[in-house]
This record gives sequence, C-alpha cells and structure tokens, in this order.
Amino acid sequence: MPIILNETEVTNYLKEVFPELSAQWPLLNIEKISDLEGKFTLKIDESMLRPGGTISGPTMMALADLAIYATILGNIGPKALAVTTNLTFDFMNKPPQDDLICKCQILKLGKRLITARAEILSKNSNLLCTHAVGTYSIPPAKS
Amino acid sequence: MPIILNETEVTNYLKEVFPELSAQWPLLNIEKISDLEGKFTLKIDESMLRPGGTISGPTMMALADLAIYATILGNIGPKALAVTTNLTFDFMNKPPQDDLICKCQILKLGKRLITARAEILSKNSNLLCTHAVGTYSIPPAKS
Amino acid sequence: MPIILNETEVTNYLKEVFPELSAQWPLLNIEKISDLEGKFTLKIDESMLRPGGTISGPTMMALADLAIYATILGNIGPKALAVTTNLTFDFMNKPPQDDLICKCQILKLGKRLITARAEILSKNSNLLCTHAVGTYSIPPAKS
Amino acid sequence: MPIILNETEVTNYLKEVFPELSAQWPLLNIEKISDLEGKFTLKIDESMLRPGGTISGPTMMALADLAIYATILGNIGPKALAVTTNLTFDFMNKPPQDDLICKCQILKLGKRLITARAEILSKNSNLLCTHAVGTYSIPPAKS
Repeated sequence: MPIILNETEVTNYLKEVFPELSAQWPLLNIEKISDLEGKFTLKIDESMLRPGGTISGPTMMALADLAIYATILGNIGPKALAVTTNLTFDFMNKPPQDDLICKCQILKLGKRLITARAEILSKNSNLLCTHAVGTYSIPPAKS
Repeated sequence: MPIILNETEVTNYLKEVFPELSAQWPLLNIEKISDLEGKFTLKIDESMLRPGGTISGPTMMALADLAIYATILGNIGPKALAVTTNLTFDFMNKPPQDDLICKCQILKLGKRLITARAEILSKNSNLLCTHAVGTYSIPPAKS
Repeated sequence: MPIILNETEVTNYLKEVFPELSAQWPLLNIEKISDLEGKFTLKIDESMLRPGGTISGPTMMALADLAIYATILGNIGPKALAVTTNLTFDFMNKPPQDDLICKCQILKLGKRLITARAEILSKNSNLLCTHAVGTYSIPPAKS
Repeated sequence: MPIILNETEVTNYLKEVFPELSAQWPLLNIEKISDLEGKFTLKIDESMLRPGGTISGPTMMALADLAIYATILGNIGPKALAVTTNLTFDFMNKPPQDDLICKCQILKLGKRLITARAEILSKNSNLLCTHAVGTYSIPPAKS
C-alpha cells in the first residue's frame, strides 16, 4: 500500500498543527515513512538526561508516541486525526548518552482502531532500550 | 505502615538528585504521601498544551511516572532506587485546560518488584483523564 | 445510572449466548452488578491448579476478561456486544488454593470504547493476586 | 547463544512438571525453539470456540503465556522457574476456525527480568490476530 504523506510532508504537517511540539522537538528527524513502518532519530540534549548520563523514561515515552503518530499520519493522511487510547511501555535497558533510534511498525490499520508497536534503540550500540505497543482511535467523521 | 519520607523530604530529595527535573517541573506539588498512597497536583503551563486547549499525553505520562516514583520513595526511602520497568496508560478523556491531580496507590510493595497505579484527573471537573499501571524494580544491593 | 441487566439476567444471557462458556465455568457466580461495578466469585477446581497448589495465570486472565465483559453487559445491555481490544495484567501474588473474588470497575463508559479494571483477590485472605485493565470496543451498529 | 533445552526436552519437561497442563493442551506442538525465539502450533478443538466460529480470547492468552514460558525455558534451562509478572494483549483480528501459530521473541534476557513478545497468527491465512508482550521474573536462588 503506498503511503499518503512522505517524510517531508509529515514533518511540515506536524510543524503546522503542533507548533509547540516543533519547539520542543527540534531534534527529531523522520528518517523514513513507508508502508506500515516508520524510522526516526532523536538527537539527545541536556534536558533529556538523568543522573548517570542515561536518558529519561518520559523522553522515550514521548518519542514513541510521536513516532507512532507520525507513522500513522503518513499511512492514512491528515484527514482523520488519530487519538492515543492506550500505550504500554517495557523499559529494558538504560540508554547511554547517545542519540535514539525509534522504529515503528503498524500491526493493524483498522478503520476505527490502529495498533502499532515501536522499538527504541541506542544509535551506536544498537541496544534495545524500550519497547512500546499502542492503540490509536480514529474519531468518527463529523456529519 | 508508617512512611519513611514525608512530602517535604521527598520534594527535597527529588530536587537534589534530579536537579534537571526540578527545572522542568517547578509546577509539581506533592500534596500528600501516606501509607501506600500519594496525591499530587500539576499546574499546567503553555508548554504542556496541545491544539484545542487540551494537555499533551507525554505530560500526563511524565506526571504518572514521577508521581508513582515519589510515592514509592516516600514509602521505602532513598536507599534503594526504584527503576521503571513497565508502564501501561489508558487515555480516556481529553483533559481541559486546568491543573491535573494525580492519585497513586501502591498495589504491591515487594522487595524486588513494586506495582502501583495512578489516576490523573482534571482538577475542577474531577474528570478521569488517564489511568496508569506500572511496575518498578528495586536493583539488588551492591556488595 | 441504573443498570440494564441484573445478576440473574446477565447469567442467563451468558448461558444462552455462550453455552460452551457455561460448561467451562459452572463455578462462576455473579455476586453483584451495579452502576459501573461488578463483583464475582470463582470456585476453584482441580483443572485450575498448578504445582504448589497455586491457581494458574490463564484461569485468572479468563476470569478478569469474563467478569469485565459481564459488568459491561449489565451496564449497557445486550444490544451491542463489546469486543475485547486490549488487556493488561499484573500478577502480584500467587493465589493460594482458595476461591477467587473479582471486583470490576468501569473507568469510562464511552459510546465506542469502554475502559475497565479488575482486581482478583483470594477469598479468605483478601490477598490481591492480579490486577487487570482492559479496553472493550463497541462495534458500529449495522444499518 | 545456544539453547539449553530443545523442543523435545521442553515438551517433556512441561509434561512432567505441569501434568494437568498436558491434559489441557494435548494440542500444543512446539515447532522450534532457537536462540531467543520459539514457534508453536495450537490445534483448535470445540472447547476453544466462540459463537460465530471464532477462537476465544482466553485460549489465545493461555497460548501466548505458555509459548513465552516454553521459549524462556529452552533458553535458560529448568533450574530457575520464570514467573509471569506482567502481560499485555492487543486483540486485533478475530481468528477464523483454524489452527493458531504463535511466534515468540525474547527482547531482553536479563538475570532477574525477562521481556518477550508473541504474535498469534491464524495458520492458513497468516492473519495477525493477537499481539502479546510480557515480563517474567526469575526468583532469587534459595541459599
């Protein structure tokens, strides 16, 4: 299935609709959005760090949520705005002080509910730090 | 069971150990930490808002994680630092632009694993916005 | 809000619609269904036990799913059949060889999505064994 | 990393330690256990069906839990018995009346906590029906 919005279009859409998000996340780069998949890089800055040089859990949770959202957006287009209804995180390894990679996979692209998962890895070591699974709801069209 | 650290002691501990957290969260207030429970208020500022005046999911996820962490800290003290291993969120209602209340309950206070849940409510309407359940691991003592 | 089906009506409905379920679960008793809440007792038999006299995880998972389903049924009636879309379990204490109590609470009764949680306790000790949170979807009416 | 128990050894171990499980699950076949992975087939019988010819959620939950357990057993051996601490299920598509395939992947094989995920597919159509993620705890050695 072809995607509806490509990397640049998703980036521009997010900047337009969530301007405050762009301010918080100048460091997020959408590497690739393809059929049911997405790949993202997050450059780490000081505000995301925790004692010992690791990256905070909330930074990874925000990354996974946004990355899945962007992957869905590229695959269904901007008409129907997905709403996060459920997110489950498993934190497996503390990330070292390095950029994060987030790989998303849409498991089911339903008309009303979309299920996706994401893996967050440390860029250079490829260490799997966090796994996320989420459900996103597509609100009914207003008539 | 008596708590080990009270509200002020937990606040001071968090400011000391996570100074960058205190910078991000000057708006968090620990209302009460008691036996297996905690209650928190988060004042909302512009950076936490999303289009339509609602509060972002990552703001609520960070709040739940920190609130559960603080509740555990008050109940077991600062010697063993809990590590988040699993967090599940259900987002049920979009919060209006109002302060958030977070109520935590420790379901099991084990020696190695602690399970807790949190409810995030909108302050004035008392609307239940988000439910969280999490598991926190206590690393083995170094010898 | 008044319930739509009471304990007997829900029991009869389940026996009619899921006859194979009634065969598997002759031991389940619906104690009470009230506004957004439900309480259930499961009598334990040999097939549910595991080595050491504890009760199997799948027994508790099936109990939580069915109990939440029955609580929803009592609250919305039999017209729209809820479908389980997401279930998260935390297993905290191994249940001793005793009947199980399951207490359900509907957190959000939406038109399309219902979120509920359940606590499974050992009957005599009141030990909290398992916590569950689930999302149930109401399929759109066929026209 | 080489596995410690192969498919036959895991099957025999489960039959010995959980005889009641073997009675319930004569239909489960361990296809393959390899480094951090496992593949299983469940033959469906009448007791697992629901109205409309679909397979019950509890059948899939029990399958995922047992399959992950067996995959862990093959990878760490029988000395330390893993205990399920957390399981999250996403039910995406109702399985038709056909055998189920369960593919497991261990995401982290820690000394104290093991995280794994499982996909349950309908055998002939390859339809992804259910996704599971779980955490299993290894109890401390008794001394």
